[in-house]
Amino acid sequence: MELTFSALPNIPLVAPQDNVAELIIAAAQSKPIEIAENDVIVIAQKIISKAEDRYVTLNDITPSEEAKKLASEVHKDPRYVELVLRESNEVVRKKTGVLIVEHRLGFVHANAGLDQSNIEHPDGQERVLLLPINPDLSAENIRQHLKNQLGVNVAIIINDSMGRAWRNGTLGLAIGVAGLSALEDYVGGEDIFGRELKVTAVAAADELAAGASIVMGQTQEKTPVVLVRGYTPQQPTDPDQQGITPLLRSKEQDLFR
Amino acid sequence: MELTFSALPNIPLVAPQDNVAELIIAAAQSKPIEIAENDVIVIAQKIISKAEDRYVTLNDITPSEEAKKLASEVHKDPRYVELVLRESNEVVRKKTGVLIVEHRLGFVHANAGLDQSNIEHPDGQERVLLLPINPDLSAENIRQHLKNQLGVNVAIIINDSMGRAWRNGTLGLAIGVAGLSALEDYVGGEDIFGRELKVTAVAAADELAAGASIVMGQTQEKTPVVLVRGYTPQQPTDPDQQGITPLLRSKEQDLFR
Repeated sequence: MELTFSALPNIPLVAPQDNVAELIIAAAQSKPIEIAENDVIVIAQKIISKAEDRYVTLNDITPSEEAKKLASEVHKDPRYVELVLRESNEVVRKKTGVLIVEHRLGFVHANAGLDQSNIEHPDGQERVLLLPINPDLSAENIRQHLKNQLGVNVAIIINDSMGRAWRNGTLGLAIGVAGLSALEDYVGGEDIFGRELKVTAVAAADELAAGASIVMGQTQEKTPVVLVRGYTPQQPTDPDQQGITPLLRSKEQDLFR
Repeated sequence: MELTFSALPNIPLVAPQDNVAELIIAAAQSKPIEIAENDVIVIAQKIISKAEDRYVTLNDITPSEEAKKLASEVHKDPRYVELVLRESNEVVRKKTGVLIVEHRLGFVHANAGLDQSNIEHPDGQERVLLLPINPDLSAENIRQHLKNQLGVNVAIIINDSMGRAWRNGTLGLAIGVAGLSALEDYVGGEDIFGRELKVTAVAAADELAAGASIVMGQTQEKTPVVLVRGYTPQQPTDPDQQGITPLLRSKEQDLFR
């Protein structure tokens, strides 16, 4: 088995209202590469957020009393903290310089995924970029657009660099998924000696997102779309298990919250 | 940029005292593929452990009182729990069926990485396979062997499937590293608009380990070696930052222990 992770070239800087699916089609044609059935396309969150105009100008934000108090605790800009709180279900951990929350989308993420690098700050106005409103839906819309235009079924993963417990360094992980089962379930399977497999599930979407992240590199804007070929996506059998839902461990099930 | 993750074919079932580096050379020749400078070779922990004869027969183990007590709390075999404790610095979390520890090697891992799937159980004797004694050293030895035999500098990552806080599903992550910097540091770098990058470090070895894990699939024994081409390994500048050391967050620095 061989997997290739190829950066699609010539993706321009993305601006609000750009159609990311069309940018992907144009980039593939320029390579040239024919997007094919079962390809997985991993897209950096940042360009989805830009296309969806998820910019907020910090000067437009009036922090709440709660945000001011928290900002002084963790030594961050109160306007920034206000935005983190608006994007979050709850604060999970905090210390100076660190604010880890459960994002409103259900995953645990530092600063609710707010981003200030690789974005333009027009007229010196400090802006931040929020995560997409609904990354699973963003992914599904791109998947449908590619299906309509190219006649092929692909899988889409939107990834973001995330920190984690226990280990240093960020990993690219999935925050939105369409057209594949984010979790591959091996329960009931057998190992090569016919013994029942006890490992339950592999976070396939996260493994693909991580591999693509290496190709994107740190300054993701340069190569924010990676085409993965050679993987056969599993499809979710349960309609409740679409998107990133199967990857999310609830607070009640989580020993580390 | 393009990364390819290729499974090396024809790796036989590994037995104690097998030379994994020689198996890799033979597998590459059979493909045929020429192992080249800067290739990254990701190897499943399981075959390293088998080659290093890290098998233990459960019937040979006499559980301590501590192991018996803990085993009854989490509903596991006391002999198995005894081995987990011997392989661990401390228990981090426990509940029925779950035992998460800080492994003696410094990372947090369920059941100290003890494995019972895809291993032979001769004469019906239940065996478990422990992690390698020193995976960084195992990786370095293989790296040196390949350098001596083939005259090329490669990087070696030994990976294992690991659970994590907050998210469901396992990921393939690095437990041993040689010939590359496990963490890529961007502190002091600039983004594409010349703004200082605040993200500190990318867990490159983990991202490569995760991508390779997709190729290995769940029953790792079938394709336990994956050659990654297209990545240029960074080298650690600080001699204290060899191997997986830079990936390990100490308990004192960890908000989730």
